[in-house]
Amino acid sequence: MSNPNKPNHWTLSARAEKMNPSVLREILKVTEKPGIISFAGGLPSPKTFPVEAFREACDKVLREDAQAALQYAASEGFGPLRELVASRLPWDVSPSQVLITTGSQQGLDLVAKVLIDEGSKVLVETPTYLGALQAFAPMEPKVVGVACDEEGVDIEDFSRKAEGARFFYVLPNFQNPTGRTMSEARRAALSAAAAKLGVPLVEDNPYGDLWFDQAPAAPLTARNPEGCIYLGSFSKVLAPGLRLGYIVAPAAIMPKILQAKQAADLHSPSFTQRMVAEVSKNNFLDEHIPTIRALYKRQCEAMQDAMKREMPAGTEWNTPTGGMFLWVRLPEGVDTVKLLPEAVERGVAFVPGAAFYADNADSRTMRLSFVTASVEQINIGIKALGEAIRAHLAARSAKPEPALET
Amino acid sequence: MSNPNKPNHWTLSARAEKMNPSVLREILKVTEKPGIISFAGGLPSPKTFPVEAFREACDKVLREDAQAALQYAASEGFGPLRELVASRLPWDVSPSQVLITTGSQQGLDLVAKVLIDEGSKVLVETPTYLGALQAFAPMEPKVVGVACDEEGVDIEDFSRKAEGARFFYVLPNFQNPTGRTMSEARRAALSAAAAKLGVPLVEDNPYGDLWFDQAPAAPLTARNPEGCIYLGSFSKVLAPGLRLGYIVAPAAIMPKILQAKQAADLHSPSFTQRMVAEVSKNNFLDEHIPTIRALYKRQCEAMQDAMKREMPAGTEWNTPTGGMFLWVRLPEGVDTVKLLPEAVERGVAFVPGAAFYADNADSRTMRLSFVTASVEQINIGIKALGEAIRAHLAARSAKPEPALET
Repeated sequence: MSNPNKPNHWTLSARAEKMNPSVLREILKVTEKPGIISFAGGLPSPKTFPVEAFREACDKVLREDAQAALQYAASEGFGPLRELVASRLPWDVSPSQVLITTGSQQGLDLVAKVLIDEGSKVLVETPTYLGALQAFAPMEPKVVGVACDEEGVDIEDFSRKAEGARFFYVLPNFQNPTGRTMSEARRAALSAAAAKLGVPLVEDNPYGDLWFDQAPAAPLTARNPEGCIYLGSFSKVLAPGLRLGYIVAPAAIMPKILQAKQAADLHSPSFTQRMVAEVSKNNFLDEHIPTIRALYKRQCEAMQDAMKREMPAGTEWNTPTGGMFLWVRLPEGVDTVKLLPEAVERGVAFVPGAAFYADNADSRTMRLSFVTASVEQINIGIKALGEAIRAHLAARSAKPEPALET
Repeated sequence: MSNPNKPNHWTLSARAEKMNPSVLREILKVTEKPGIISFAGGLPSPKTFPVEAFREACDKVLREDAQAALQYAASEGFGPLRELVASRLPWDVSPSQVLITTGSQQGLDLVAKVLIDEGSKVLVETPTYLGALQAFAPMEPKVVGVACDEEGVDIEDFSRKAEGARFFYVLPNFQNPTGRTMSEARRAALSAAAAKLGVPLVEDNPYGDLWFDQAPAAPLTARNPEGCIYLGSFSKVLAPGLRLGYIVAPAAIMPKILQAKQAADLHSPSFTQRMVAEVSKNNFLDEHIPTIRALYKRQCEAMQDAMKREMPAGTEWNTPTGGMFLWVRLPEGVDTVKLLPEAVERGVAFVPGAAFYADNADSRTMRLSFVTASVEQINIGIKALGEAIRAHLAARSAKPEPALET
């Protein structure tokens, strides 16, 4: 129906009417003031971008293969890059099962188009990656959060909620936002339960290569490739600004994913696909990724140490074994959405945890990224964060709670 | 509902169940044999790719701005590129109205998400760009074709079908597939009728810069910016392999387009956006685009001349004044889908016109691209095409029509 208040009778789709400005986006605007030490964004450290290798790769691609690199190409992606992806995965994957996407965010969009109808039940972890909720939303699913603990998914809760679910979206390694990693036992149990209950798993693994001391247990997809879609990314091991990721899908689903991809953007850029394929020759990733691991491990340890020094009693946080994030729970009575502007005043930013819940948000939580800021900035920023929390708690105990807060 | 025949109970969305392998894609596979002269794909001539300028741009971007070029970035796009787009459009456009997309194909996907509900009426020209039909399809519209003639849209037919339409998708310049251009009078009439009837226009203009002797009349959007969404592309003036296009949308719609963009792929590649912004400095496009026009004009004239020599009597085609395509209608009784494999046998390929109709396809039509093949190839290929058509017509008149053809 036309809305006469809109010029020229623009009528939005029902999904668009429901879209709201991204909470996280609005929050991050607050944190973009110059001089702020930000633990908010999930931005890989620019120190890890292999700039010189990219420059050589660009030069080589444009000298040797410019016509193809600048032309339209197949929707599936550049053959050698699909082969590279298949060869690096720890189970038997044919390049024909690999489709190159415009970042793994696009993988979520394609999965949503192919598997979600209006009202379809979709299961997610509690909490889960905000970008996945945003990617699924246009297809209007009913998103249901499955309980999780430090080991990963609560299998009983999953089993209770599995009936009729189109899929269960899981991020087993160094999860965004919590940084936690699913144990081997829990992976085995989840894989078995999902197969038994007939619920496909959509496994998102952008951080899996970023382990500190030991690689995480085998992917869920490796345990049941026909029952899983696997999403990966070059954003965290090379550079996010190229926007290259991939989907590995079983033959039962791949033709539909491919058609959705073609309709979405025809194909991901031929040029950047060749850049990544070229840079990755001669086992470059096997040399490069360990340098990222070492850097992030140092910064994670610095943050853990600073947290121990600076956080008030009653604050809890986890000890990630890789990835980019750690997860903090503050003492009772703190709402991290309200804390954020006070922290920004003191020069430090984080993401309030509430943004990452499909339902029943825990307002005492926050996500901290340890990868963007240097060790020196981490020490300064966590000190400022501790002060902000103490001041917040002191102000709360000094004044009575107003009847209604907005 | 679960389908027990699918492993692990994959349940496809209704939209995915309706997706079929792209007719065009399947057709183009036939044409990919080595040695085939192809007038099928809409592939810009690789001769027009400014390879050396791109190499310098890559080098400069990676020397001077690598950290930002390789990092996550704003969903709206790279500021200087948005400014470039705004400054080149022939009406008053603020950079804030410009959103950079992963090819203009993505613009169609975002428009569909924001404006189409299941069953929404969407108007398209007859025939229309196949990729638009594919981009709209996942949102399950009811697509209605509006009659067109050599001048463009039939205003009476549009007015009859306008009631309740979410938008009318139009390609006024050197249309894909027909190569025709809407006259000034018809643009004025369509713009007035759309405003009066409250139907938004989605104006797609990937070919507008590719005029031969005279720029086409002003865009529809320039006449009523609040009532139109405008889609543009760098694919035809620089290189399609970078996958960069843009949407210009009124303020009433832009926030929703932006949210859909963020959910789809976060942002288009930071690196390629900077490549294009860098290459386009110092009015490069004003020097480069005329060289493309001159090349395509020569090739179009060669194709026209060859058609006059080689086509059998009763064949009709138009004389495009720019763009990449011309449109052919063969004598009665020819189905170009059946003709295609016979033409490929003789070493030449085209796209059967039926693929481009939302409804009531004209099976006698075909699209020929004059931009990919050289003048020499055009002469050889059109000769072979003429022979294929004559042989097809001779075979048809020699044998009685079978009762049922498949």
